Amino acid sequence: MRLATIRTRTGTSAARLDGEVLTEIPGHADVGSLLADEDWRQIARTATGPRHLWDETELHTLVPHPSHVLCAGLNYKAHIQEMGRELPAHPTLFAKFADTLTGPNDPVATVPEDPEMDWEGELAVVVGRTAYRVGEEDAGQYIAGFTVANDISMRGWQNRTTEWLQGKIWNRTTPVGPVLVTPDAFDPARATLRTTVNDVRVQEHPVADLLFTPEYLVAYVSTMIPLRPGDLILTGTPGGVGRARTPRWYLTAGDRVEVTVDGIGTVSTPIT
Amino acid sequence: MRLATIRTRTGTSAARLDGEVLTEIPGHADVGSLLADEDWRQIARTATGPRHLWDETELHTLVPHPSHVLCAGLNYKAHIQEMGRELPAHPTLFAKFADTLTGPNDPVATVPEDPEMDWEGELAVVVGRTAYRVGEEDAGQYIAGFTVANDISMRGWQNRTTEWLQGKIWNRTTPVGPVLVTPDAFDPARATLRTTVNDVRVQEHPVADLLFTPEYLVAYVSTMIPLRPGDLILTGTPGGVGRARTPRWYLTAGDRVEVTVDGIGTVSTPIT
Repeated sequence: MRLATIRTRTGTSAARLDGEVLTEIPGHADVGSLLADEDWRQIARTATGPRHLWDETELHTLVPHPSHVLCAGLNYKAHIQEMGRELPAHPTLFAKFADTLTGPNDPVATVPEDPEMDWEGELAVVVGRTAYRVGEEDAGQYIAGFTVANDISMRGWQNRTTEWLQGKIWNRTTPVGPVLVTPDAFDPARATLRTTVNDVRVQEHPVADLLFTPEYLVAYVSTMIPLRPGDLILTGTPGGVGRARTPRWYLTAGDRVEVTVDGIGTVSTPIT
Repeated sequence: MRLATIRTRTGTSAARLDGEVLTEIPGHADVGSLLADEDWRQIARTATGPRHLWDETELHTLVPHPSHVLCAGLNYKAHIQEMGRELPAHPTLFAKFADTLTGPNDPVATVPEDPEMDWEGELAVVVGRTAYRVGEEDAGQYIAGFTVANDISMRGWQNRTTEWLQGKIWNRTTPVGPVLVTPDAFDPARATLRTTVNDVRVQEHPVADLLFTPEYLVAYVSTMIPLRPGDLILTGTPGGVGRARTPRWYLTAGDRVEVTVDGIGTVSTPIT
């Protein structure tokens, strides 16, 4: 099953995607609201609200109000090793805020304070049930599905101090979407992640190379805090970011950056 | 004016404290809800709800659902210099989640995964109006008031990676309160912060030694994201944490840790 949050004339709505047709899921303004109902699979599967054509519908960020957004850094093995580092024993984690998120096709504005705007294509996990202190072997049951994110980062501010947060939380800079795909319809171990800037391929890597898997990350974070339905975990980016290139390559107004995960779709971001 | 969030028979309520008497502010379940009303000062000043004696009332965490909780590290000049570091040009920032917060007298449980539980007494700023891209010179107008926090930290997990987040977000480990004091009744430049563990003084420092002031921090964070009413900024801890002592001193079940800021009050935490 594929789910989206769409913009309608009156606000937003959760919707089910079948082929090219989106069917609204009445009573749920977004996928986060839907997931908070423990019967969400049944509700989504049987919904018969107003229908829209995919190509003619504007998408909203998949979960506009998650209670937690966590991000893993340094999580693709090949990238860690090519940088000459040892594989870490523990995930590196930082946070984002809900208002850092934006729609999968929305523009992202450059900021005057930091010209070093960079891309990070990522697979993201969407939590489907409250998960507190769950084991890795059970964690899959708490995953509602997978989506795509671009952890657009302000490298100047990120590297002002040891803590990356201030490069990672700028208002409406992290596109998430276009859809959530449930685990029965998507296998991260067989997917490829691909990022392009103005149609030039800059990242292409198998998701199977993740050091800490989605299940591991859900279990690990749930040791500390109760993950809630709709919470997001961004799983990290492979090699090929702009800052690691020679010469460095940063995003500027007029660029378009796209992140695709096979089997999910593309977030496509005009930089303004 | 002094404001608190109290626990009542039916839930929680915002309340005004006058001397030893708390007066409920009807229609507002907590101080965060109150601050979201732009007439909050007038509403709080004139409220005439049920009254309670301070000594007989249980306090809730001051703002249970802030949209952002940010924390500054390395922010007391003397402590930075005694550690042999240069004064940083920019604040070091990390995040917490709403469910990391707890009441000012609530117990905090040790966790089996990390025996290195440490204290960090801090002054905290409570935002009173939406603040986006405000200057330092105007930032004071966006501060509703000040409160006290103990950024209880799991040092083992904090130091697993460069990013401190995973030592800082454990469920219900950051007591905040007991009250918000409005700026007309509290001057951070004249206050002292004091932490005791089992009545032994471990931190005592003038808040005036903050490198990045409350106004600076509000302006700085507001460059990135819109701060909202009820948002919290923890301003950092001075020297004297358990990890920096010889031998190291960590909290264990049966301890009581208390943080006091003159003119605001004390958060008093039994460790269980």
